Amino acid sequence: MSTPVITLTSDFGLRDGFVAAMRAAILGILPDASIVDISHDVPPQDVAQGAFIVGTTCPRFPEGTVHVAVVDPGVGTDRRPVVLMAGGHVYVAPDNGLLTYILSAHGAGGYPQPLAREDGFGMPTRLPVPEVCSAYLLNRDAYWLAPVSRTFHGRDIFAPVAAHIASGVRPGDAGEPVDTLTYLNLLHPVREEDAIHGRVIYVDGFGNLATNLVAREMEETKVVVEIGSRRIFGLSDSYAAGGGLLAIAGSHGYLEIALTNGSAARRLRAAVGTGVTVTTAG
Amino acid sequence: MSTPVITLTSDFGLRDGFVAAMRAAILGILPDASIVDISHDVPPQDVAQGAFIVGTTCPRFPEGTVHVAVVDPGVGTDRRPVVLMAGGHVYVAPDNGLLTYILSAHGAGGYPQPLAREDGFGMPTRLPVPEVCSAYLLNRDAYWLAPVSRTFHGRDIFAPVAAHIASGVRPGDAGEPVDTLTYLNLLHPVREEDAIHGRVIYVDGFGNLATNLVAREMEETKVVVEIGSRRIFGLSDSYAAGGGLLAIAGSHGYLEIALTNGSAARRLRAAVGTGVTVTTAG
Amino acid sequence: MSTPVITLTSDFGLRDGFVAAMRAAILGILPDASIVDISHDVPPQDVAQGAFIVGTTCPRFPEGTVHVAVVDPGVGTDRRPVVLMAGGHVYVAPDNGLLTYILSAHGAGGYPQPLAREDGFGMPTRLPVPEVCSAYLLNRDAYWLAPVSRTFHGRDIFAPVAAHIASGVRPGDAGEPVDTLTYLNLLHPVREEDAIHGRVIYVDGFGNLATNLVAREMEETKVVVEIGSRRIFGLSDSYAAGGGLLAIAGSHGYLEIALTNGSAARRLRAAVGTGVTVTTAG
Repeated sequence: MSTPVITLTSDFGLRDGFVAAMRAAILGILPDASIVDISHDVPPQDVAQGAFIVGTTCPRFPEGTVHVAVVDPGVGTDRRPVVLMAGGHVYVAPDNGLLTYILSAHGAGGYPQPLAREDGFGMPTRLPVPEVCSAYLLNRDAYWLAPVSRTFHGRDIFAPVAAHIASGVRPGDAGEPVDTLTYLNLLHPVREEDAIHGRVIYVDGFGNLATNLVAREMEETKVVVEIGSRRIFGLSDSYAAGGGLLAIAGSHGYLEIALTNGSAARRLRAAVGTGVTVTTAG
Repeated sequence: MSTPVITLTSDFGLRDGFVAAMRAAILGILPDASIVDISHDVPPQDVAQGAFIVGTTCPRFPEGTVHVAVVDPGVGTDRRPVVLMAGGHVYVAPDNGLLTYILSAHGAGGYPQPLAREDGFGMPTRLPVPEVCSAYLLNRDAYWLAPVSRTFHGRDIFAPVAAHIASGVRPGDAGEPVDTLTYLNLLHPVREEDAIHGRVIYVDGFGNLATNLVAREMEETKVVVEIGSRRIFGLSDSYAAGGGLLAIAGSHGYLEIALTNGSAARRLRAAVGTGVTVTTAG
Repeated sequence: MSTPVITLTSDFGLRDGFVAAMRAAILGILPDASIVDISHDVPPQDVAQGAFIVGTTCPRFPEGTVHVAVVDPGVGTDRRPVVLMAGGHVYVAPDNGLLTYILSAHGAGGYPQPLAREDGFGMPTRLPVPEVCSAYLLNRDAYWLAPVSRTFHGRDIFAPVAAHIASGVRPGDAGEPVDTLTYLNLLHPVREEDAIHGRVIYVDGFGNLATNLVAREMEETKVVVEIGSRRIFGLSDSYAAGGGLLAIAGSHGYLEIALTNGSAARRLRAAVGTGVTVTTAG
């Protein structure tokens, strides 16, 4: 038997010992836990960027993995701590949109129901939990550290709950069922007859721009990608192939805009929210 | 049986492979060691900041954990490498003040004896080891890597000694007893009849300011916190509750000054050493 | 039995979840793998800096360790993915010079044959694999993740192959033998009768400058080290001993130029490639 895997994602950075305090909390409950950092460099309080990282990375772990995600500007307020079971994985997080990509992957048509499109890019809405998932409000303090601080529920609530679940506690024992969770309005491009209007949803450390356009839906040789005043013709086979600005199927499955040996974000002065339009060449 | 936990704290950063070299040294001695990073982003040579991280994070790990802490501007000089046993934990570190918070937590009244107050904030002094602890000078090179480099005792002395101790070697076998260790003068605020004058002792990655004032000693609704020309009335329940500059009980137990969704350090141009005064409203 | 160790080195940073995706790939194949990060902060696409980190850190791990190294600007092109067996360790990497130090350590006289010297510092050349090593081109996709993305072979090829090898697959089963690999021209200083002309080959996070001059070949008290317009007389015993700019035997074995409690790189405006000349005082 291998040890249960618990992953950690946060905006805590690695400088202050906050992540280590979460690990200490887990090891105190489950001494042989196998703990993996996803990222702790989510920009401070940036739930949308955290949601992308959680959504594109966590599901790649083996089934049964327990994921702790804490980008939590509302810590100490009445925002809800929740656990979500989805696709054989368990997610422990504040209910603030951080699980948007996970939830959407299990709902019919992306979300359980369509969100408003152009208006309110990135805005949160409370929507039903997909039918194939289940979710619980964490309200059983028997599974928390005591005393619970006002400012660090990652250490005092989320990590201990994850450790208990990895130890065999059922998520339903850690809280009561909830029917709705918070989604961020990020994933729906606007489709017209001749064009799809999407947006940049993530900028990685190389400056590559991930968009909310699914790459496999595109005819590689025929697409024309417009961003700002630039046009890119066709998709490239590699970052090196373009020798400049290029579009490519990203490793996450989304259309990505990159610059050979450089930062597309800097070159284009693009950021999350920047519009991207794809048309098909005659 | 779970594997022994060894933690690592340093100012090495994660870029250069120095931390991995410490892990390699440990794994060569104890192949199934469970190694946890506390932080490697202590500001270079900043012993006081390292001491805060060690002091607030290491004791949260399970008893029996062996902690390696290396912020060591005096590497290669006659500063002493030591091991400290305190509160069921083992600390392996240079004797330069890095264990100040750990030592103080076990001494009567904060330190074994009072340090000078206003003068010499942050200055080192050699003081007795608390009675409930024991300490040893690391001078048995049988537990070191050979040859010992001039510049990297983390890899060649501290990590191997920790691995041997985690493997069952008694700290007293790795060196000879010492009666005094180095403390930094950080922890004592100045108490007057109507006010307590403290200082900022740590600035975290969010820009939150930790002070050397113990939060649980304060009446939450009645305190007035002064920093620079700003006054904060009462303690907040959450980072979000203030909607601006606020004071709150930090997750480390110290009074903390924060800014909702922002950096108090930047807003206030505050840093380690900045004065903070607390009075009680009529 | 302890679990097999797999190390990871890359220029992916820790922000985006790329490293976690490699860990997920490994854990899916080998659930009890012990995975150690060497560094993920190699400057983007900087193969030479990655090569130094791999070369000075990886061999310190226990024999049998499997090392994954991915600084891979040519991902998706026809650059070759390879596995190298050297000194009881296994290295899985793109064939772009990232294994230069490892290869050179096993060749007679540094490289299997001399490279051009002053010209082409850092340039790649295809040279024979040292006789005591063996290397294979990774071309058996049974050991890869499917589908293989265009942009992330660290996750889809290198990490899975490493996991399979750590699980017992022989490197020769993962690909076919190759006789030559790529070396970067970094390691050979130019020797004259009275002087050795070397270069800075690595700048660490403290600003210390590692050169391609082997420290143990120097008479400590008599050397004169010239860099830019500065002269340093003799080698120091510690970073603190100089009280300013100093030369010292680095923990990696190379001559290092440092500044007490500061950054030599900043003080000297030095970088990789900066010339360093060593003479012996009369």
